[in-house]
Amino acid sequence: MSPPTAPFITDWLRARAAASPDALALVIGERRWSYKQLDQLVDQTAAWLNTLDRPKNYRLGVLLPNGLEYVCLVHGCARVGLVMVTLNTRLTDAELQWQMEFTALELVIGEDREWGEEHGVKLVRPPKFDEDVSFEVSKIASSRPQSSFETIQSIVFTSGTTGRPKAVPITFGQHFFSATASAFNLGVDVHDLWLSCLPLYHVGGMAVLFRSCLYGTAVDLHARFDIEEINRALDTKPITLISLVPTMLLRLINARESWPSSLRLVLLGGAATTPELIARAEMHHLKLSVSYGMTEAASQIATLLPDSVRQKPGCVGRPLLFGQIKIVAENGKPAATSEYGEIWVTGPNITRGYLDQPQINAQRFVDGWFKTGDIGYLDEDGDLWLVQRRSDLIISGGENVYPVEVERALRQHLAIADVCVVGVPDLEWGQIVAAMVVVEPGQSISAKELEDFGRGQLAGYKIPRLIDFVSELPRTASGKIARQTVVDQLSTIHSPQPKF
Amino acid sequence: MSPPTAPFITDWLRARAAASPDALALVIGERRWSYKQLDQLVDQTAAWLNTLDRPKNYRLGVLLPNGLEYVCLVHGCARVGLVMVTLNTRLTDAELQWQMEFTALELVIGEDREWGEEHGVKLVRPPKFDEDVSFEVSKIASSRPQSSFETIQSIVFTSGTTGRPKAVPITFGQHFFSATASAFNLGVDVHDLWLSCLPLYHVGGMAVLFRSCLYGTAVDLHARFDIEEINRALDTKPITLISLVPTMLLRLINARESWPSSLRLVLLGGAATTPELIARAEMHHLKLSVSYGMTEAASQIATLLPDSVRQKPGCVGRPLLFGQIKIVAENGKPAATSEYGEIWVTGPNITRGYLDQPQINAQRFVDGWFKTGDIGYLDEDGDLWLVQRRSDLIISGGENVYPVEVERALRQHLAIADVCVVGVPDLEWGQIVAAMVVVEPGQSISAKELEDFGRGQLAGYKIPRLIDFVSELPRTASGKIARQTVVDQLSTIHSPQPKF
Repeated sequence: MSPPTAPFITDWLRARAAASPDALALVIGERRWSYKQLDQLVDQTAAWLNTLDRPKNYRLGVLLPNGLEYVCLVHGCARVGLVMVTLNTRLTDAELQWQMEFTALELVIGEDREWGEEHGVKLVRPPKFDEDVSFEVSKIASSRPQSSFETIQSIVFTSGTTGRPKAVPITFGQHFFSATASAFNLGVDVHDLWLSCLPLYHVGGMAVLFRSCLYGTAVDLHARFDIEEINRALDTKPITLISLVPTMLLRLINARESWPSSLRLVLLGGAATTPELIARAEMHHLKLSVSYGMTEAASQIATLLPDSVRQKPGCVGRPLLFGQIKIVAENGKPAATSEYGEIWVTGPNITRGYLDQPQINAQRFVDGWFKTGDIGYLDEDGDLWLVQRRSDLIISGGENVYPVEVERALRQHLAIADVCVVGVPDLEWGQIVAAMVVVEPGQSISAKELEDFGRGQLAGYKIPRLIDFVSELPRTASGKIARQTVVDQLSTIHSPQPKF
Repeated sequence: MSPPTAPFITDWLRARAAASPDALALVIGERRWSYKQLDQLVDQTAAWLNTLDRPKNYRLGVLLPNGLEYVCLVHGCARVGLVMVTLNTRLTDAELQWQMEFTALELVIGEDREWGEEHGVKLVRPPKFDEDVSFEVSKIASSRPQSSFETIQSIVFTSGTTGRPKAVPITFGQHFFSATASAFNLGVDVHDLWLSCLPLYHVGGMAVLFRSCLYGTAVDLHARFDIEEINRALDTKPITLISLVPTMLLRLINARESWPSSLRLVLLGGAATTPELIARAEMHHLKLSVSYGMTEAASQIATLLPDSVRQKPGCVGRPLLFGQIKIVAENGKPAATSEYGEIWVTGPNITRGYLDQPQINAQRFVDGWFKTGDIGYLDEDGDLWLVQRRSDLIISGGENVYPVEVERALRQHLAIADVCVVGVPDLEWGQIVAAMVVVEPGQSISAKELEDFGRGQLAGYKIPRLIDFVSELPRTASGKIARQTVVDQLSTIHSPQPKF
């Protein structure tokens, strides 16, 4: 007897609309949809998708900002059996071209771009529900006859700051286990309303959609981090959960005096959280939950709950249910407690490998473990501390230098407002340690003074050889420090190229 | 690449102890265990299980009351790869003998019974942790090399009141989907403390254990429904959830004036809930959630949430996430809205079939649907109303008579305190409708008067032909009406047999 539910199990919106049709599903601005209403819009979307030429490889590119159309396409692709390739709207045409070729896309649903035949990919505008377009819903058909936990839901590109991004196939099973493990860590309130301004083309944004659908709770979706809009939502809607990266939280803390009593958790991810930010959040009586996640894990790997965040600022906690973490030292053996090493992870939320990267996969997916390349350690409680993301590690003269360690040391100087330490390519050393520094208003410090200050705390090879003073650090639109931009700018200083 | 987590995924206690070691897992009376402590006890249990002669069919009988030993055996069997056959402690030796033979048991962990070789099954006392017994934990070994969602966790006998009970193999996947769907219906609070006095040998009791383990929440486990103990727990512990059958709730309502503010849900299942009980619970400001479940579904199929329980007393709600229900009329076609028919169910929590019952399976498992045999209807909202459990349906002269319908009619007479309507074997009619009646104190009524009262509301063939007045209805230890005992007693009256 075959599993009775296999044909249904990946159309989660359909299942949810059957289980709780009248529950609130989605809020965008002042507009609201119940699960039944959203299900009907997705029926229309699915019927519309069936009118398009079906891609031979079942892959459909999506190049849209957050919005109703995107949500409907996420569920519509699941309904008709298309694999969504989520394209970053902030990329240039040339960057997109590479990603579209790599995933052999034939068709992209997009807007705000104009292109013709030059990319070899057909660009189609999404359906506009506002215009009351209706499609023959009876014509919904699935491309793939059967679906299961192993079915690929989407292909998402990593947002790595060095080298080409890698394409990560994400299955429905990964999303499901990620969502259940998160539920059984953070709890679920049937009245949850989750504010998300994370882009849906990244796994963190997509995960909020799937979690809410599985839980039967609602998402308050924002196109971007617009501080006025977010503040208005917090002031007028019963928001219970909000997903932010640290810089967004800092901006909100600077802009608000009080917070709604409905807010039960602030979920921080995407970048390291400083003890200062945690202390400020504490003064605002916010309940912070800090996560370590990545595209390859369909979002969270480890999450620290609010009670522990206060006790261990900077820690990211334990792996979620069914996940495991081990730290492997440089000699390839398990690291001792508190010893730095590479973070290896396993669990049902981890991808089986990158798309079309057999060599990288052979190196990084070993015996069921994924070698993240990130550096961290486990403390005596088994809690994970993240030392350095893979892409940020500096190797100078054969020595590993962890930028956060250098940053932490330099930041202790009273004249330093902010600092970013990176590795800059160097013929002799491979990389040299370099720092971009923002000085506190009214203070001053020379590069020599800062070097001397660092020498009191750091081994010689960790002292920045190059220090650049700037008025502010370059940041991405989402507020993260743009490390690659820092590398690029400091590289120009280190070995100036003639500009033609 | 094989799924990375397959070897771990069915040892949920291990996974939970890794994810939240210090969370409270189990409370029995004044004793408390964290997940880490419970995990260590289960290591001992697993090591102890490995010292026993391993059953060739991997099946281990368990014949114990609720308690720490039972909990440790549930997780210990999962750890070493044994299938637990849960035996009802209230059965006679002869009834047990049949179940043990049917499941080909070689070994039973039990107490409170004395037997030697006569059953052909070895009876072993459980380990006593109180005595500080330790086993070589390093010797834990799994019987089965690999486990998955398809792995059978236990074999549980149905508690059907007619005929031989059937043996239901229940997989880890069934428990998992049951637990997640329930979580995404009722919500999960990380501080939940779930009072359960349901026997662990039935699926409802077992399900509470697995849910709590997956959710990372705690169970307050009781050996039985002892009203003093339950009241003490409600008065002294922060109970948030309590699972009861209706009679237990009625007794508690009669015994209490106020309820703890921590209590967020009362979960009612196991028998039909009367509007009177719902009204009384409402007066006590209790939040009731009413379920329809069965062993074959690894517990719940449909559950009605508190807000709707008030609006629709007697309804059991919608199928949980990923489940589906359809009503099939007597002509084999889908029933219309509000039309009575047989309840068919499907979903990942439904068993694939009974153990060693190919003929029954061929009849009742069709195209991925399980034909429950229960009678019900769906209202215009798609909510399920249960009319009659399969085993209680009366067929008299070819006509279907639903006992609840007759009971509901007779209960409207002011002189009637309680009533149970059953079918009694009859040569001429197949079955006749018979009623056992409890009269309100201070009131009186004759069988003739009650018949006349019923005739005003019911078709002639539904009027009880036999009415027996008693001081109270026979009940099971768990408080359900013992319908088979009613049938037996009324059968004796209907065609008295000489007693030798």
